[in-house]
Amino acid sequence: LFLYLNDQFISTSNARIAPDDRGFLLGDGLFETMKSTQGSIHFFKQHWQRLQNGCQFLAIPVPLSDKTLQTIISELLIKNNLHETSAGIRLTLTRGSSSRGLLPPENPQPTFMLTCFSLAPIKKSVSLHVTKIIRNEHSPLVKIKSLNYLDNILARREAFIHHTDEGILLNTKGNIAEVSAANIFMVKDNKVFTPSIEEGALPGVTRQIVIDICKKLSIPILETAIDLSFFYSAQEIFLTNSLIGIQPVHRVNDQSFSMGNEGVVFKLQQAYAAILDKKSRKA
Amino acid sequence: LFLYLNDQFISTSNARIAPDDRGFLLGDGLFETMKSTQGSIHFFKQHWQRLQNGCQFLAIPVPLSDKTLQTIISELLIKNNLHETSAGIRLTLTRGSSSRGLLPPENPQPTFMLTCFSLAPIKKSVSLHVTKIIRNEHSPLVKIKSLNYLDNILARREAFIHHTDEGILLNTKGNIAEVSAANIFMVKDNKVFTPSIEEGALPGVTRQIVIDICKKLSIPILETAIDLSFFYSAQEIFLTNSLIGIQPVHRVNDQSFSMGNEGVVFKLQQAYAAILDKKSRKA
Repeated sequence: LFLYLNDQFISTSNARIAPDDRGFLLGDGLFETMKSTQGSIHFFKQHWQRLQNGCQFLAIPVPLSDKTLQTIISELLIKNNLHETSAGIRLTLTRGSSSRGLLPPENPQPTFMLTCFSLAPIKKSVSLHVTKIIRNEHSPLVKIKSLNYLDNILARREAFIHHTDEGILLNTKGNIAEVSAANIFMVKDNKVFTPSIEEGALPGVTRQIVIDICKKLSIPILETAIDLSFFYSAQEIFLTNSLIGIQPVHRVNDQSFSMGNEGVVFKLQQAYAAILDKKSRKA
Repeated sequence: LFLYLNDQFISTSNARIAPDDRGFLLGDGLFETMKSTQGSIHFFKQHWQRLQNGCQFLAIPVPLSDKTLQTIISELLIKNNLHETSAGIRLTLTRGSSSRGLLPPENPQPTFMLTCFSLAPIKKSVSLHVTKIIRNEHSPLVKIKSLNYLDNILARREAFIHHTDEGILLNTKGNIAEVSAANIFMVKDNKVFTPSIEEGALPGVTRQIVIDICKKLSIPILETAIDLSFFYSAQEIFLTNSLIGIQPVHRVNDQSFSMGNEGVVFKLQQAYAAILDKKSRKA
């Protein structure tokens, strides 16, 4: 297996992260998870834009151009024999090494890493558990995809302990914020609702695609506050992220939710698949 | 320079963190910062206890005993020629490598690293800036010293931009929580106040020592909520952490605070120095 680290392709077993890397010591960095099909990266432009936003926010220089990144990813997929199938790609960018202390160095030399991996089969639907983990919607960090993932890890672990697939994080007001590794949506009376960024939702790439699809299909979509009682009144619930796309939820704690070929979720899944299909035929 | 990684002393330039270490990828780990004088570690027992608490909370196995840890630290200080002076020691413990995804592996093989370093001169007093960074006092993470330090990094950076030494983080209610790399205390009418753990204060080792000193000296000490207007009414303000001990604050934003040989802070500093002195004479 090969990965790309800083400026070279290297076998995973030979790759070395420095022990004073601020990503390792302080979680001082960002990541992106992307999906590719037959070597074509889904929604690359949107991931690139979010990476740029995160880098600007954290004042970490972007160490390469979008064109170069695309070229490297293509080559990495080929080297790992993942260019003729579906694959996941993770980009990790940290502020690199520095002298001790929290203050970022004046001229950071970022650590840049790309890995790719084959995808586990995606479940047709998942169960959720409302966890005790509270997401801080007041933190500017909710807007970027930072390496500070312990809250999400704890939520995922709590979900696992309760024999469910994913854990819901509430925000400090007790409203729905997101799921440990996905954004969350609900459908009620043919309207779609999702927690707003201000409520603590990560600005997910697929989340935005779904919002755009709703607008295009004239399905009312509201980015808003969603409290638990409203949430439980949903007709359908679904998750989004770059790897799963749009994934229906069949259960939250003890309550079941419907799924089926008549609902809004099915319609959104079809529209999402059509976008990817169109893109891949273009590529 | 040498560090200790997993089970061996190794030169810093040869040390390698695996690219799939969950500490690097997800901030999935803990750290401790300790101080030593002439090879004797200050308040080792307390740091060990906090590490145990953090490991238990995150379900990361502690990979060695307290005795072994002490022995390794002593040897590391000697190898780096820091055993006859004051030195800092950082312990980093991550959940190690795992297959992809947030869910912790069933049998984690933790990554354990120790580094030591000479100490920068400690300023006699510091200035603070009240930052826009909000600490999530609702997160269970506030009780452990995790690798998720981006909020604190952002606060430190904001303080730097405002030409001050350290940044104050408020909690979600707008009360004082802590400082980017220290706990904070205020003195008013010969009483000492510090944010409670519930308000978002990290349970600092030196923080607890200071609380114990106050009790011993019959200085009233309250762990409580501290809003900004009460905070600004302080007669004295000081910071605590393992490296700086007790450090007076001379300014917060535009307001100056007194320091001097008559105040409570001076008394606490003397008591703190006496404890360390007694310990070092015993050792």
